Amino acid sequence: MAKQDLQQLRSQIDELNLQLLKVINERGMLVQEVGKLKGVQGTNRFDPVRERVMLDLIVEKNEGPFETSTLQHIFKEIFKANLELQEDDHRKALLV
Amino acid sequence: MAKQDLQQLRSQIDELNLQLLKVINERGMLVQEVGKLKGVQGTNRFDPVRERVMLDLIVEKNEGPFETSTLQHIFKEIFKANLELQEDDHRKALLV
Repeated sequence: MAKQDLQQLRSQIDELNLQLLKVINERGMLVQEVGKLKGVQGTNRFDPVRERVMLDLIVEKNEGPFETSTLQHIFKEIFKANLELQEDDHRKALLV
Repeated sequence: MAKQDLQQLRSQIDELNLQLLKVINERGMLVQEVGKLKGVQGTNRFDPVRERVMLDLIVEKNEGPFETSTLQHIFKEIFKANLELQEDDHRKALLV
């Protein structure tokens, strides 16, 4: 019986993993759009003020079970991944 | 005009951040449930085989723009956060 519960929980977790995958990639595309716009405007890609605003919103809305500090760490990894993605785009643009 | 576009993209990104927050926390709760079940069954909390299965599914379903290696890194951070959460639960249980 416990084994069946375990199986069911795991398939729910797999489902959430795929949702995360989808949302992280969607977010990636939007940040690429922002990068293009900001490229046009000539401002820098890394924006600590905007990052702070996003993290503050996460703090405000966090209902657990994760500590806010843990979530901030995960989100910072997501932000960092996006910066790298934008750098790749920039390098590719230079090669064209 | 570009400023308005930027504003709009940012509010879409905020929306996705909140979705991520929700799904990461939901996932956290499910993994806590798994921890309880596995506690009952006496097996270890860290399960490299299960982690591999989850990462393989992510590889399989990734449609970009992120590289699979980047996504795996982010997911490993999420897995690690869950292990820490379960350790906290375990410590709290010992204190009761």
